[in-house]
Amino acid sequence: MIAETPTPPYYAVIFTSIWTEGDNNYGDMAERMVLLARDQDGFLGVESARNEIGITVSYWRDLESIKKWKENSEHKTARENGRKLWYTSFKTRIAKVESDYDFHKL
Amino acid sequence: MIAETPTPPYYAVIFTSIWTEGDNNYGDMAERMVLLARDQDGFLGVESARNEIGITVSYWRDLESIKKWKENSEHKTARENGRKLWYTSFKTRIAKVESDYDFHKL
Repeated sequence: MIAETPTPPYYAVIFTSIWTEGDNNYGDMAERMVLLARDQDGFLGVESARNEIGITVSYWRDLESIKKWKENSEHKTARENGRKLWYTSFKTRIAKVESDYDFHKL
Repeated sequence: MIAETPTPPYYAVIFTSIWTEGDNNYGDMAERMVLLARDQDGFLGVESARNEIGITVSYWRDLESIKKWKENSEHKTARENGRKLWYTSFKTRIAKVESDYDFHKL
């Protein structure tokens, strides 16, 4: 679903990935990470889509909350597994959302 | 593919969408828009993934180049078709990329 984020400014972490073959229990980890992220102070939402590449965008109140999430030990383990099992390459971009607008069909 | 963007800062336009049923010639338009965007001054790259939702992130040198692209007449027509044909809802976020890092498996 589209994340229901507050009025900007807030932060986006854009994670773009190229995948290895096979699932390697990715689904279980991804589900767990979303549950864990929701409990973090400053977490605002997450959006994810995947076909040839994967794009996951998570939204955060500020850089401090992103930093704390990066230091979460379970998240660290998941990222290590990502490098070992799931991704052949990825790029992470930290960006400050300055404006947004949306559309909903009546 | 993962866009090969320059050293930050630069801008990201994060476009998250929920789709109507059917293709309605979306593929042809999407291909045309990427070709057209590549010709725009300030365009840095684009990444796109889709399954339950669609996420397209395009990267731009600055707000001015995003504004010019938004004013492109063919792009305007495509956006109108998007509202009519392809999307039941979407959200667009304009964000300034402040930092990035990547990983490539050897």
